[in-house]
This record gives sequence, C-alpha cells and structure tokens, in this order.
Amino acid sequence: MKPASYNQDTIVAIATPPGSGAISIVRLSGQKSLSLCLRHFQTARKGLTIENIESNRIYFGTFVDNTKVIDEVLISYFKSPTSYTTEDIIEISCHGSEYIQQKIMEILIDEGARTAEPGEFTLRAFLNGRIDLSQAEGVADLIASQSESLHKIALNQMRGGISDKISVLRRKLIDFASLIELELDFSEEDVEFANREQFFKLIAELKEELSILISSFSMGNVIKQGIPVAIIGKPNVGKSTLLNAILNEEKAIVSHIPGTTRDAIEDTIILNGYRFRFIDTAGLRQSDDVIEKIGIELTYDKINKATIILYVCDISNLSNSKVEDVLEEFKTYIQDESKHFILVANKIDMLCQLPSHIKEILELDTVFVSAKRKENINLLTDMIIETVKKFNISNDVIVSNSRHYQALVNANKAMEQVQAGFDNDVPTDLIAIDIRQALHELGTITGEITTDELLGNIFGKFCIGK
Amino acid sequence: MKPASYNQDTIVAIATPPGSGAISIVRLSGQKSLSLCLRHFQTARKGLTIENIESNRIYFGTFVDNTKVIDEVLISYFKSPTSYTTEDIIEISCHGSEYIQQKIMEILIDEGARTAEPGEFTLRAFLNGRIDLSQAEGVADLIASQSESLHKIALNQMRGGISDKISVLRRKLIDFASLIELELDFSEEDVEFANREQFFKLIAELKEELSILISSFSMGNVIKQGIPVAIIGKPNVGKSTLLNAILNEEKAIVSHIPGTTRDAIEDTIILNGYRFRFIDTAGLRQSDDVIEKIGIELTYDKINKATIILYVCDISNLSNSKVEDVLEEFKTYIQDESKHFILVANKIDMLCQLPSHIKEILELDTVFVSAKRKENINLLTDMIIETVKKFNISNDVIVSNSRHYQALVNANKAMEQVQAGFDNDVPTDLIAIDIRQALHELGTITGEITTDELLGNIFGKFCIGK
Repeated sequence: MKPASYNQDTIVAIATPPGSGAISIVRLSGQKSLSLCLRHFQTARKGLTIENIESNRIYFGTFVDNTKVIDEVLISYFKSPTSYTTEDIIEISCHGSEYIQQKIMEILIDEGARTAEPGEFTLRAFLNGRIDLSQAEGVADLIASQSESLHKIALNQMRGGISDKISVLRRKLIDFASLIELELDFSEEDVEFANREQFFKLIAELKEELSILISSFSMGNVIKQGIPVAIIGKPNVGKSTLLNAILNEEKAIVSHIPGTTRDAIEDTIILNGYRFRFIDTAGLRQSDDVIEKIGIELTYDKINKATIILYVCDISNLSNSKVEDVLEEFKTYIQDESKHFILVANKIDMLCQLPSHIKEILELDTVFVSAKRKENINLLTDMIIETVKKFNISNDVIVSNSRHYQALVNANKAMEQVQAGFDNDVPTDLIAIDIRQALHELGTITGEITTDELLGNIFGKFCIGK
Repeated sequence: MKPASYNQDTIVAIATPPGSGAISIVRLSGQKSLSLCLRHFQTARKGLTIENIESNRIYFGTFVDNTKVIDEVLISYFKSPTSYTTEDIIEISCHGSEYIQQKIMEILIDEGARTAEPGEFTLRAFLNGRIDLSQAEGVADLIASQSESLHKIALNQMRGGISDKISVLRRKLIDFASLIELELDFSEEDVEFANREQFFKLIAELKEELSILISSFSMGNVIKQGIPVAIIGKPNVGKSTLLNAILNEEKAIVSHIPGTTRDAIEDTIILNGYRFRFIDTAGLRQSDDVIEKIGIELTYDKINKATIILYVCDISNLSNSKVEDVLEEFKTYIQDESKHFILVANKIDMLCQLPSHIKEILELDTVFVSAKRKENINLLTDMIIETVKKFNISNDVIVSNSRHYQALVNANKAMEQVQAGFDNDVPTDLIAIDIRQALHELGTITGEITTDELLGNIFGKFCIGK
C-alpha cells in the first residue's frame, strides 16, 4: 500500500486560507523540513542548530534568501513522531502578503521540497498509522462544516467516533469468524465448536448495530446536504412569497397569476445550527400547460425527497367545504411516517378574525402566518427547528459519509447471507466466505483495506496544506 | 495620547486570511489573554496553569465550550513584554473551518474579550513603544505588497529604515535648535554661541538630506502605484494592439479605424519584480470629434503623469519626410528630463526589410516590434526594465508613503524659512519657531507627535487581526 519511497521527500504548502491577511503559515513535512528551513532562517539566538532546536517551541527570526531578508517570521518545530503527520514538521508563520507567501514557497521548492498535493499532510498521517481513514475523512468534513450540526458529526468522526464503533463490530465478527474457521479445520470430525443458538444471537446483534448505523445515514446525509424542506400547496396560496419571507430575500418570482412558479426554486439557510434547503414548488393542480405539468411532476419528486413538508393553504379563501378538502389532502400526505408535515395557514393579513371553522385545522401542526407581511415567520421557523430536534439526533455516532454508508449496507447484506446460510444448512466453508466479505467491507471504512484509487478520490477533495 | 484605560481590555481577531483552509489562527492580546483562553482549553498535560505556562511554547489540546469540544487546537503563548504588542498574546491555531473560527471568536467575546479594530494589534505595538509610526505603516504596506520592489521598500520601512534616517535628521536639528535656544536665553547679552558659518553648513546639510528623501518619493510612490508607462503616438499606429501584446490579453478594443481608442485604458502587470501600469491613449491628431478631443486632452494628461513613455510609430508607413516628423515630435517630448522615452517602431510584419532611411531612428532608444504578431515584445519589456533599473533605486531608504512625503516637504519649507531668516537678519526667536516647526514635522513621521485622528486614519486601513 505505502510506496517504499513515499516518506523520503519533504512536502511544502501554504496552510492558511488563500489571499492576504495578518498572518499566513507555510508548512513543511518530511525528513528534511528542519534542514531546509534552517538554511534560510536567521535568529538572534546564537547557535541554533538541527541538533539543539526544541520541539513545540517557537523561534523568532528572519527568513532570508542569501543575504536578502524576505520577512520577519516565527518558526515552530514539531518533532517526529509526535506531529500531525508523525514526520518532522516546520510551520513558518509570516506576514500574510501574497508576495511573501509565494517567495517562501519558491525558496523551499528550489531547495528540494515538493509542493504538497491536496490533503497530503493528512494522507501521511493516515499512511503512517496515526489516524485511520474515517478519521482522515472527518478532518476534511470538519474544515468544510458550516453548521453546528455538521461540525459536531465531523468532529466526532475525526476524533474516532466511527472508528470505535466499527472496531467493536469487527472484533465481534472476528470472534465469530474464528469459531467458524475452527469448525472448518476440524470439518472431517463433524464437530460444532460453537453453539448455533449463540451464533444466531451474535448475527442478530451485529445486524441490529449495522442497521442503527445505516439508518443514521439518512439523517447524516440530510445534515450534510441541508435538510430538505418542500413548500407545497395549491396554486396561488403564497408559496413563493413564503420562501422569500423565510430566506428574507427576493429569490422566487412572485405574481398574483396562479402557476407563476414552474421550476423548483431552492436556497439554503442555517437556522439554529441546522442547514436547511428550502424548495419552492409549482402549485398542485390539474393543468394543460406543458411546462406547468412538468413543474407539477417535479413537485411530487421534491415531496418524495423532502424530510419536512410545509403544506401551504390560503386561510382567507376557505369555505367550510374547502377546509375539508385541505385537511383531506394534507392527511393523505401525513401517512408517510418518514416525513414531517407542517400546515401553514397563509394570508392572515386578509382576515379580520379567524373564522370559527378554522379551529378544526388547529388540531394539527399548524402555524398561521402572513408571508406577504412577514408576520409569524419566526413561529414557523421555530416549529421547523423543533421538528428537527425530534429527529432523535442523539450524541451517538451518525454516519454522514456515503462511502461508509455503502460499506455498511454491503456488510449488512453479507450478514443476511450468513443468516440465510445457517437457515438453509449451507456448508460452513461457504458461510465463512460471507463472513470474510462482511469483515472486508468494515475494513474499507477505517482503511485497513484500501486502494490507491480510493485514497486518490478521498484526499483529492481536501484543501491544500491539510 | 494613550488613553489611560487603553490596555485594560483584551482584544481578539482572526489573524489569517478570511475563508476556509487547513489552518486558521485566532489571536488574543491583553492582560486577560491567557486566563480567557485557558478557561476553554483542555490538555492532556496535567496541571497547566497561568503560572507555569511557558512563553514561546506550543500546547496541544481541545478548545471547549463547557463540556462541548469545539476543535482540537494548538495554542502558542507570547509573554509580555517580548511579544508583538508587548502585551500577553495567545494564538489559537485551529482547523480552518469558518464555523470553528466564528465559534471560538464568539466564546472569547462572551468571556469579555473585545473584537479588535483593524490594525489594533500593531496600534498597541506602537502605543506601547515597541515600534514607531513609520514602522507600523511599513507593516501594512508589507502585507499589501504584491511586487518585489514594493516588498523591499515596505520591509525596510517596517524594520526601521525610515525611522533611522529621520532620527539622524532630528538629532542634528535638535543640536541646532539647542544652540539657537541658548542664544535666546542670553539674548540680552547679544552673544552668538554658534558660529554662523557652521549654521549655514548645517542648514545646507539638512536640506540636502531632506531633498534626497523627498525626491525618492517620486520613485517610491511610482513603485507603490505601479510605474506609469504611457503608450502614445499618431492614430492607427497600433498602440492598443501593443497594449494587448504586452498584457497578453485582449484588454483594449482594436480596429483598423483611426481613433478607436478614446478612453485611456489601463492595466497593471508585474515585470521582473516591478509593478507597471500601462496606459493606452487616444492617438494624437487634430480631430473635430468631441469625444475624441476629450480623449486627446486626456492623453496629454497621461503623458504628464507617466514615468516612461512609449512613443509608437508605424514603421511600414514612413516616407523619408515622415521619419523627420516622427523624430521631430519624439525629440520635443524628450526634453522633459524627468521622463524616460522609448521609440517603438511597430508593424515590422508589414516590411520585407528595414528601409535604409530608418537607420536614423536607430540612434535613439528604439525597439522594432510587431504588436500584431507579438514579435520582439520581450525586447521591449527588457528595455523598459533596464530603464527602471537606471532610476537609481539604491539599497537606501525610499519614501513611499504620501504622509511622510508631505511632512518632509513641510520640514524642508521650514528649513528654507530658517535659511531666509538668517539671510534677512530676522530675530533669532522667530527663526527658532521655524526650527521647532521642522522638528514637529519630522516627529509626525515617526509618531513622536500624533493625533487620534491621524492614528485612526492610519490604522483604519490595516487588515483585521494585525
């Protein structure tokens, strides 16, 4: 896996965000970090050498090119093996001028350092065994995280949350496998070392734990992509106006003509630490307009993919019979238990007082708003946030990475094969193959089993300098 | 000057460029830096306290909000008074996620830190006497520097180049002033303590040194703004095509119609470490077109402001008599000694061989190019670079700051008054006023004399976190 020559070169990259600022950091990792840097570092401290420089200490001086001073800098040294990559690391903290950053990079590259690939520092931390693959992926997710909920999942993953879970599962599977393999060794003697009852219990346990992780992905993925909230309802009830009111900008075109919105219009917004993706849809009605029909089909698609659905109705224009219709339609949707519905009674600005027949609606999760006047929009967003909190996001591990999800699903399938194998008295050596497959799948998550292509895919998405 | 309460609060800012990246730094300065940070820092190292934390050392741990981990971080401590601001400084190096940066800022602000104003760290370094005002201004220039030449001037200024020069001048002036003041004290006795010859020599010396600094500003300012290179000539000789060829992009609209360019079109490019501002101008001719006439007036304005002028002629369309005209016109310009002229003989692609009458032109600084085919453009840029090198940019101090320039001009004026005073036997007490004025002006450069408004102007232009 790890190329023999891998750690012999020394890599360099600008580790701070691109552009100019007060401070920037140029980072080196590899055997020659220290010697390359000290060749260009002058300090008032007499006799600083590769031998006596201390780890985790900061030195002030000038970074020079021959006699020419490039900048006054601080250098920090992290001695192998207790560094981020486990190699010798030097961080040069310079003034955040783009010219200075580039110049320092140039000088170090001329000395023989190589520009680091995206994520190469973290790749080295993985290849050198300091972190596993799911932790490395957590680092990238952590840097990209823009909301509190996503930050929490990524931090937990970086700190080994997923890895711990997976290693518990693997240990159980290995125990299981070793009993099976033992039976195989003595197969001619027809011995059963393991009690079948025990086996079944273990399989059930593993499948249960895999299922919990797998089902956490729908939440993890939703948090990563933004929780989809579809705004649906009959034409002209004010769906686009409501979208604009929630986003507090004129995102969707609004008119009094029914059927104005045809495309599904989306935008994301962070509320209370959660990232939401609000989707305005075409109004639901029978239509002969070809484009509007496509829009309505798209609405059904968005309803399918949404986690939360806001069903909007025009409260100012509801006779008793129409209320029935609205409730009828609303209730047909509600039957889908994986989705969360909120009834939004819009246009309260057009009413003097709430008609008595509306009370019936009140029994449901309903909020009365005026999208046009932006009244009670905060009540609606509060209700949306409360709904998300009910999703049961525990402190426990949440899978947010689709690669992990796929491996868990595969492992689960293999365990089902194992179960079926026992049920149908399949020979033990065939069952052992499925167990090994499950082990393999779990191993890909933490990177015990990996390929160059996979690593390229994962680390290619990192930012430079990490 | 320094408000009594000034240093009692602790400031915080993100010091790295905005956006996300591998690493970001949140920086604290002030008495409470350490206590604020340690309240939220947990490390495996047992018993780390305000008392035993070491300066210039890096500690690994987690930054927490109550029990919630925000990130794994490194903190660096710079103990007062040997820090950038001379106050206690803490730098928190975290993952460069925007969410994490904001969260750490929020927590520290909730604890009582105040968001730093732009440049406030450097302002404190100045107010606490670690650097003077011209050095502080050098820091901002250094961060903004995009070319090697500007970087060199800014670095020299930050490291005290200007300050040293000014303090030599001030010392001489103070000696001078003290002799004058002594005469004033004994004025009733009509004593001349100082030999008038000596005085005149000193005045001449001071004026000479002030002049050198003042005249360096034309270069310093030019380097800061980009050295202006005006491209002038008759209509349709290919000026816009030449601009595009130098910039290597289609910046100016090109056509075969004389008078296509009306606005002066500018763009900057860095050649050999110098930043140049190339200006394409309207062709010089008699015109009745109102807009073109305005354009031609603008051309003369650009010629006035340019440091280097490229006079372009169409070599493929020059009869003997026309060569005379070109040379005539070219030579009228050349009389301005503060400017540098290059004759650009364009359209060599339209010639089979150079006509013999052209040789006359060769006596001048001439380069033969084809702007259209981008031939010999590098010869032209080499000639431009050589011209700049002749500007005599020594390693010595160059004034690039217009505030310093203004103060030097004022000091010089005051010294002229002093000279005139002696020449006209003005009473010594009036001469002393002018000397004090010169001292005052020099003092504003290094910040011995300053106002809140001036400081606000200077530091308001800094980036946040420096």
